[in-house]
Amino acid sequence: MGVVVPFDGGEDREPSIDLIVQLVAKDMARVNEAILLHARSHVDMIPELAGHLINSGGKRLRPMLTLATAQMGGYRGDAHVKLATAVEFMHTATLLHDDVVDESHLRRGKQAARMIWGNQASVLVGDFLLGQAFKMMVETGSLESLRVLANAAAIIAEGEVLQLAVQQDTSTTEDAYLQIIIAKTAALFAAAAEVGPIIAGRPREEQAALESYGRNLGIAFQLVDDALDYSGKQAVLGKTVGDDFREGKITLPVVLAYRRGGKSERAFWKRTLEDGEQGPDDLQTAQRLMERHNAIGDTIERARHYGAIALDALAIFPAGPHKRALAQAVLFCIDRLH
Amino acid sequence: MGVVVPFDGGEDREPSIDLIVQLVAKDMARVNEAILLHARSHVDMIPELAGHLINSGGKRLRPMLTLATAQMGGYRGDAHVKLATAVEFMHTATLLHDDVVDESHLRRGKQAARMIWGNQASVLVGDFLLGQAFKMMVETGSLESLRVLANAAAIIAEGEVLQLAVQQDTSTTEDAYLQIIIAKTAALFAAAAEVGPIIAGRPREEQAALESYGRNLGIAFQLVDDALDYSGKQAVLGKTVGDDFREGKITLPVVLAYRRGGKSERAFWKRTLEDGEQGPDDLQTAQRLMERHNAIGDTIERARHYGAIALDALAIFPAGPHKRALAQAVLFCIDRLH
Repeated sequence: MGVVVPFDGGEDREPSIDLIVQLVAKDMARVNEAILLHARSHVDMIPELAGHLINSGGKRLRPMLTLATAQMGGYRGDAHVKLATAVEFMHTATLLHDDVVDESHLRRGKQAARMIWGNQASVLVGDFLLGQAFKMMVETGSLESLRVLANAAAIIAEGEVLQLAVQQDTSTTEDAYLQIIIAKTAALFAAAAEVGPIIAGRPREEQAALESYGRNLGIAFQLVDDALDYSGKQAVLGKTVGDDFREGKITLPVVLAYRRGGKSERAFWKRTLEDGEQGPDDLQTAQRLMERHNAIGDTIERARHYGAIALDALAIFPAGPHKRALAQAVLFCIDRLH
Repeated sequence: MGVVVPFDGGEDREPSIDLIVQLVAKDMARVNEAILLHARSHVDMIPELAGHLINSGGKRLRPMLTLATAQMGGYRGDAHVKLATAVEFMHTATLLHDDVVDESHLRRGKQAARMIWGNQASVLVGDFLLGQAFKMMVETGSLESLRVLANAAAIIAEGEVLQLAVQQDTSTTEDAYLQIIIAKTAALFAAAAEVGPIIAGRPREEQAALESYGRNLGIAFQLVDDALDYSGKQAVLGKTVGDDFREGKITLPVVLAYRRGGKSERAFWKRTLEDGEQGPDDLQTAQRLMERHNAIGDTIERARHYGAIALDALAIFPAGPHKRALAQAVLFCIDRLH
């Protein structure tokens, strides 16, 4: 009595997405159908290019959030399937535009679409998917969901522009970096988790809790992604280790290593990331400097911090499989490193 | 009595946008305010880049259509200002992405944004404006307007991809070309004119009439634009004469000249547009071939055909300044050549 039990049981602490995958499996099959249906076009290049990315084996974490939070709210209609599909399309459109902006060669371990169909098609098919996403949202008739997702769309783009602006600035602060990933990554996680309770007609408190859950999960997810870019195995990562480094991206491991390093180390980061002058051994040197300052370890520690906030955001919900699945997903996002 | 009088008076036949400009002037001032307000961001590059294009003196024909058709329907709220602003943002986003896709150097007689801020920023600021556009639509609470504009967004992108696919195919038919411009240009004109009566709560018949008006006006507008690219003066055109030629774009003047030309002429078009091998005199040769086959004159004739359909679409509305203004705008779009 009066004792706060933050988790429902020991199994919450298991880093796995198996439970959430299982809970939403039926709905996710309908999302997959909707994805194929709405990526269709009489213009052949559209389903070809969209299909390349859509079938490349993303975990579909974002639409799962929408499905699971709607289910947790007891939702019984089919609007959550449409919203989840719209969320995945928004995400796919962002990936297509990102690859053009970042000049990436790989995406999820496969050739990036722009390497096959060109930058032009990637920009335009991204626009098409965004248009289809909004059409699906409109079909649900939920203005509140539309508001949340349209807002996320603008914030995501804003975050990407901000990232572009600081791209080569090694003196970026951790705060500034956080602001970027809150916009470019966490905003869609937050929106995906918020529209579930919205469509289920749950009270404002629950909407806010799941929005907070999604945002903090998204931050943790991105931080771990940034760490993986310097320490992961390509097969797990689905992109080339060192992509961020080669693109001169300032991520938290860099922010920490730069600040903790001495003068010659800072000169190294400036040369390789600001001036873009990279030799064949530089990635290895970067990894060694990060090791020296525990930049990867502390990036994961930061991720754990946001993961803990996400878990606490779930505390207001009664115990049950959905709460357990959402909690496990947080731990999975953080521990996929190992 | 039973006599169909297609026009209200001789002044309808005056090619001018003065009347529509005058009728919507007050509302347009509010649109311009909303544009500035919603292009704002704490990320400096966004208002800078957006402002570059927004202040570059487009005629804002598309938002004028929304304002004028809402006014004609007796609308008294302020949702039409939001929708008109959203329409202009959708258009601006398309221009930003188009310039990247087409690798254009100029836009409206100024340096294209991508030449100053880079392709990356142009893609992302386009995405941001699209997000803002949807936010504004959501604010109106009109799901029907959202449906129309989201649909247009997907169709526009689809049309752009289609254009990309036939970009270098001189054997493109007039029908295929029409299909492209109906999607990439006319769809937004149609949507802009349709949401006016929707927001004004006018009957379905009037919505359909104004949608048809907008679509056919848009087709005529694009055809004249295509003609101007080979025959206009740069100052009038706001882009470099010959841009389409240099980019290997297949437009109606090319479709006509190619089909009407002999074997050696077709070889010329294939070399310059399909193979992209262009010498310093080739633009002049292209213009001479078009002259020989009256390709420009007949492109304008085709534009007149769609203009006539647009005018007839207005026939169900009672006489009045708005009807007159919309009719004059059609003639203006066609006769701006002179």
